[in-house]
Amino acid sequence: MIFSIRAVTYYRLARKLQLSVCGNCKQQACSGLFSHRNCSAEAAKPSVPEVSSWGSKKVRQKQLQRAKETIMASPDLEAILAPLRASVKEQGDYVRKLKESKESDNELARAVAELKLRKRVLEDKELELTKAREGDFDRIKMEDLIKRRFYFDQSFAIYGGVTGLYDFGPMGCAIKTNLLSAWRKHFILEEQMLEVDSSCVTPEPVLKASGHVDRFLDYMVKDTKTGDCFRVDHLIKAHLEDVQKDKKAPDDSKARAKEIIATIDNLNREGFRDVVREWKMKSPITGNDLSDPVEFNLMFGVSIGPTGLVRGYLRPETAQGIFVNFKRLLEFNQGKLPFACAQIGNAYRNEISPRSGLLRVREFTMAEIEHFVDPSNKNHPKFENVKDLELNLFAACDQMDGEAAKRIPIGKAVESKLVANETLGYFLARVYLFLVKVGVDPSKVRFRQHMSNEMAHYACDCWDAELLTSYGWVECVGCADRSAYDLTQHTKATGISLVAEKPLPAPVTVDVVECAPNRAVVGKNFKQDQKKVLDHLAALSEKDTLALENELTSTGKFSINVDGQTFELTKDMVEIKKYQKTKHVEEFTPGVIEPSFGIGRIMYSVMEHTFHIREGDEQRTYFSLPPVIAPFKCSVLPLSGNQEFQPFVKQLSQALTASDISHKVDDSAGAIGRRYARTDEVAIPFGITIDFDTVNKKPTSVTVRERDSMEQIRVGMDEVVPLIADFVAGRAKWADALKKYPKFVQQEASAKKE
Amino acid sequence: MIFSIRAVTYYRLARKLQLSVCGNCKQQACSGLFSHRNCSAEAAKPSVPEVSSWGSKKVRQKQLQRAKETIMASPDLEAILAPLRASVKEQGDYVRKLKESKESDNELARAVAELKLRKRVLEDKELELTKAREGDFDRIKMEDLIKRRFYFDQSFAIYGGVTGLYDFGPMGCAIKTNLLSAWRKHFILEEQMLEVDSSCVTPEPVLKASGHVDRFLDYMVKDTKTGDCFRVDHLIKAHLEDVQKDKKAPDDSKARAKEIIATIDNLNREGFRDVVREWKMKSPITGNDLSDPVEFNLMFGVSIGPTGLVRGYLRPETAQGIFVNFKRLLEFNQGKLPFACAQIGNAYRNEISPRSGLLRVREFTMAEIEHFVDPSNKNHPKFENVKDLELNLFAACDQMDGEAAKRIPIGKAVESKLVANETLGYFLARVYLFLVKVGVDPSKVRFRQHMSNEMAHYACDCWDAELLTSYGWVECVGCADRSAYDLTQHTKATGISLVAEKPLPAPVTVDVVECAPNRAVVGKNFKQDQKKVLDHLAALSEKDTLALENELTSTGKFSINVDGQTFELTKDMVEIKKYQKTKHVEEFTPGVIEPSFGIGRIMYSVMEHTFHIREGDEQRTYFSLPPVIAPFKCSVLPLSGNQEFQPFVKQLSQALTASDISHKVDDSAGAIGRRYARTDEVAIPFGITIDFDTVNKKPTSVTVRERDSMEQIRVGMDEVVPLIADFVAGRAKWADALKKYPKFVQQEASAKKE
Repeated sequence: MIFSIRAVTYYRLARKLQLSVCGNCKQQACSGLFSHRNCSAEAAKPSVPEVSSWGSKKVRQKQLQRAKETIMASPDLEAILAPLRASVKEQGDYVRKLKESKESDNELARAVAELKLRKRVLEDKELELTKAREGDFDRIKMEDLIKRRFYFDQSFAIYGGVTGLYDFGPMGCAIKTNLLSAWRKHFILEEQMLEVDSSCVTPEPVLKASGHVDRFLDYMVKDTKTGDCFRVDHLIKAHLEDVQKDKKAPDDSKARAKEIIATIDNLNREGFRDVVREWKMKSPITGNDLSDPVEFNLMFGVSIGPTGLVRGYLRPETAQGIFVNFKRLLEFNQGKLPFACAQIGNAYRNEISPRSGLLRVREFTMAEIEHFVDPSNKNHPKFENVKDLELNLFAACDQMDGEAAKRIPIGKAVESKLVANETLGYFLARVYLFLVKVGVDPSKVRFRQHMSNEMAHYACDCWDAELLTSYGWVECVGCADRSAYDLTQHTKATGISLVAEKPLPAPVTVDVVECAPNRAVVGKNFKQDQKKVLDHLAALSEKDTLALENELTSTGKFSINVDGQTFELTKDMVEIKKYQKTKHVEEFTPGVIEPSFGIGRIMYSVMEHTFHIREGDEQRTYFSLPPVIAPFKCSVLPLSGNQEFQPFVKQLSQALTASDISHKVDDSAGAIGRRYARTDEVAIPFGITIDFDTVNKKPTSVTVRERDSMEQIRVGMDEVVPLIADFVAGRAKWADALKKYPKFVQQEASAKKE
Repeated sequence: MIFSIRAVTYYRLARKLQLSVCGNCKQQACSGLFSHRNCSAEAAKPSVPEVSSWGSKKVRQKQLQRAKETIMASPDLEAILAPLRASVKEQGDYVRKLKESKESDNELARAVAELKLRKRVLEDKELELTKAREGDFDRIKMEDLIKRRFYFDQSFAIYGGVTGLYDFGPMGCAIKTNLLSAWRKHFILEEQMLEVDSSCVTPEPVLKASGHVDRFLDYMVKDTKTGDCFRVDHLIKAHLEDVQKDKKAPDDSKARAKEIIATIDNLNREGFRDVVREWKMKSPITGNDLSDPVEFNLMFGVSIGPTGLVRGYLRPETAQGIFVNFKRLLEFNQGKLPFACAQIGNAYRNEISPRSGLLRVREFTMAEIEHFVDPSNKNHPKFENVKDLELNLFAACDQMDGEAAKRIPIGKAVESKLVANETLGYFLARVYLFLVKVGVDPSKVRFRQHMSNEMAHYACDCWDAELLTSYGWVECVGCADRSAYDLTQHTKATGISLVAEKPLPAPVTVDVVECAPNRAVVGKNFKQDQKKVLDHLAALSEKDTLALENELTSTGKFSINVDGQTFELTKDMVEIKKYQKTKHVEEFTPGVIEPSFGIGRIMYSVMEHTFHIREGDEQRTYFSLPPVIAPFKCSVLPLSGNQEFQPFVKQLSQALTASDISHKVDDSAGAIGRRYARTDEVAIPFGITIDFDTVNKKPTSVTVRERDSMEQIRVGMDEVVPLIADFVAGRAKWADALKKYPKFVQQEASAKKE
């Protein structure tokens, strides 16, 4: 799955199902919550265990401090939020009451929509207050840097560009590669997962079975003259927000507009149509009339092969490529469960109107894990390792109660059944550790539990890792317990059994009642229909078989009905067999726990979280990316263009290459300060400078500068490459190096003078 | 570009152009060749410089010996080949004569086709003789291993599968990831290249400019009843080969069939149609009638966005994504040339009838490099480092003369102009070193130069790295000097100048004659047509401007013709300005040298080259993949299931993970010999066994087994992880370890007893 992608499916599903929700799941989510709603005492315990990450100690401490503050906002802020929280809780309680009293679906839907609206108002206010506290993030400055140093930019710009398609330039590409490599180490290598690389081009039946062909859609309206298309929900919202802002609009119109916006998520095609007609909406571009809303499938269709008859799609997620290979993977794993299989690859969605930069695009990279497990035992052997890790959990019931997210050790969350099981809990913890490792600000992560009305009907529990950006909280990783849904669907579609086996505690003897046909006689009597008859007999339940036996014994014949046809069978055609069988193993369809990562979204969020403007110099902007994902690990800067410096540059560059350390030599003529600023812009964490002392003094040494603190140390030529390697691998911290090597000040001073 | 992909474009282009060939290129290729045709004395010099690769010294020496033998086949083999070589040469000379005498295109085309046929016969015989000498390669056994251990397999098999689509399983996926990672290090890191990651979904105008929309096509015929499609050239060939084999067919039919097969590459749509009609060909599946041939574009079409009006394709190569970003990349590189930009990514071709496993598929991964260079200076600063490397070069003229490929140091090849320039030569050498590093058998690589009739009209020189497999010589890397073609095409299509600047040796003063419009007056007179007029005036040449001036002086007015419209301009509308300008830089369109890698093809070839059957045991098959691309670097095998062994397994596994060494723990109950065989099957180069001595003796030690030789050594527990890391990084060879550590024999003996 993923977030925006499968979320749409989930969401449409939920809508189609008119919010019918699996009672069991709701139970699970809520019982945990109720018993834990007031555990903020526990949440105040000392914070996050040490996580491997970059950033000076000071920065990290500040982030952790902020992370704690997200639980305990200052009293004056809480005073502002209190009435909003109460308003959410009031509506949440009303929704609960409606559910209990099994009120009509319409009333419930309306109430849920109002609840969402109130939650939104609360969240907007929270974000506004946070922003006021933290100071403004300057998105325009960051986008300028991203464009100027070609981190990424619109695709095919010289041809006018295509919305929703982006090209990663050298820096963006390196960050992405490093991010994926870190992901592979963190998940695949450390957890000994399997990995597949399956086709993007996918035949229709696969995506029919997964539900995407029928449900992965949005509604759109067309300008009847120009053919311009608009997502109808976006259009309605924009129109009605204008009404609300319009001073001349009558109050009842405003109230009606507010009500529609609040319930917009519950509209179906007819509902959208009625709203568009009621408000006589026109194309916002031309003012022309609009068509009625039509369904638009978000998958790119392709025709496979030359006949034009084999219909396919570009995959909208990578997960299905794992499910269809389940049998091979299980066999590869020698039949043993649990095991996890990962896939990294591109997926596609033909957005009607892509927006928000990298956050909503038509082509994107995902990394997905499907962890297959015996549904009767979802414990995890390594859960013990992470159980004390505190996560910022935003439980479904807290959302209904207008409460803030709470920091809870994952061990407690699983123990109290807030998080459904150990395996899901283990992944939440591992996801958090990964995000922080690659540069996410720990104070800007929360895990938001899906409320029962947004969860697919088959999912038991679902938590999204959301990252706080200037676009609000963005869903970057979805973690769902999908139960046996996907494998079951593919079995239904193909008739191929996708199950695992486990030994029974003790062999079991079972009674078998079987309707055994005499194939020759059946064949002779039913000719081309014989397969239908035989399949029907093979699928009979024990009870039905016994009923047939009765009839056969009393009347000498019986009838069956297949696809509207009736067939009469006589004694010579079948024999009812009864015997006992000893079973040593039982078959079961594995459950699936699925963490699903949107790589572009994570990358974008990390860039926002690490974007800085150098104090005292508005023009000097940079990203404090951790070394593990920084495009270059260090720069090599000769202080002078003098020929004597060249051998040292070459020697260092070769030594770095031999250690697989990507680096950039900048031997341009600019002053060292300007060159540092330029390497800061491409996020290079360390600068090795060859100065006159390097050339003239023995033993040979160089200076090393750290990007974020701009501190410098003097290091022996022989030691510098291993030192950088240690930084990159996370074996050493800058603080350690500061203790070991003498501090150096001259160049930074000259840089500052500039 | 790439090989099969762009090769098709090249090929169709050449066909459309009726073999019109750039005189200059032909000259370049041939002059070098003539002067070097008899330099086999030089070629016999000591062999390939040390290249970083795996394989025991014995194996590698054998391969190098064979590599030399490809030049000097044994005298008896040469005796068999001699008449075939003479036959090729005779025809080659005839083609040369026709070209010189500028004979009719038809006669030349026929002669070239016959030349190809004779070359094919020679090559088939050579391969037959090589095979007889080397023993049969058992493709079925290899495919069984590939399927059984899920290296790769058909996609969506549970849905019946789709031809031409493959999924990589855990082993194939790891090999591919490692191959790409090695590629990145070898090219991007070592050569400090830029890298981009651009969109697969590509709007039509981009691929119109590149030539793919018009020329990337095959011809097909359809079964008129079932709609089954067939590539018409495949169909004709199969049909006529049957005629040739048919004992009852009359001799003149056979002769005619032979002639058509020989000239099939020169047929156009009408030609194919006539052949199908002449032989009354029917569908080979149903015997039904066939349609006339129709063009079929090999790109997957997609519709971008909801309107259905924005037409696009899945990219058929990654190269265009680099060209359209040229301006940004040049700017990123601070305006300096030369620079290279690489891209790794998927590309797609909607094959009519995919076949030959991974060699011809519909979705595949490419790695392409575009090296942008000043066309007046294609020297390369690092060429010196590789100039003594001998490559197996199969020059165009040697192909025409029926000669074998020759081993020539790349320095000599460039010096003699056989290879067009240093940059192209440097890449050929680097490509060779890469291929050998990842496991290609050096005796099965050749670089085949495109003959003038297969080269695109704009390419100066083109060499394909071909690898010998059981399917014959397979084009795996294309290396072309594409001149300024691509950038020029995109400039033509967009009007955006894609050029670089270089300083002039000295400032130059130039005379400028310019037709300067009075915009206000022009605008007033021509209203909505003013842009047309202004654009026309701005684009006037100096000569045309002077002619207009004459007319203006004599008659007071002049007329211009734009898109069929005539506009009359008077004195008040324009002023003819003449002045001098000093230029310090000149603009030029960079040339492009392009190495383009088909990753799946390289991977498949490496698997063939490293596939082995264990001597004396037909059932034990394995791949001797070099550690750098092996899916797991080592296995960890406790000799007993005894609890005492577990802490050692855990300790080793953690230490390996900490060093980023992928490994497989096999603690199943099987005998150690069977477990070794199983790890051999997944190509694990080293097995670490924890035996009773590990558990009982101090200092703690383990055994390490090397896969290819099955030799074992005893190594201290503390030393084993660094040792494996050294093997993987290529810092240590097995032979070194054998000298340092005591040999161990016991387990392998027990393994053999099994």
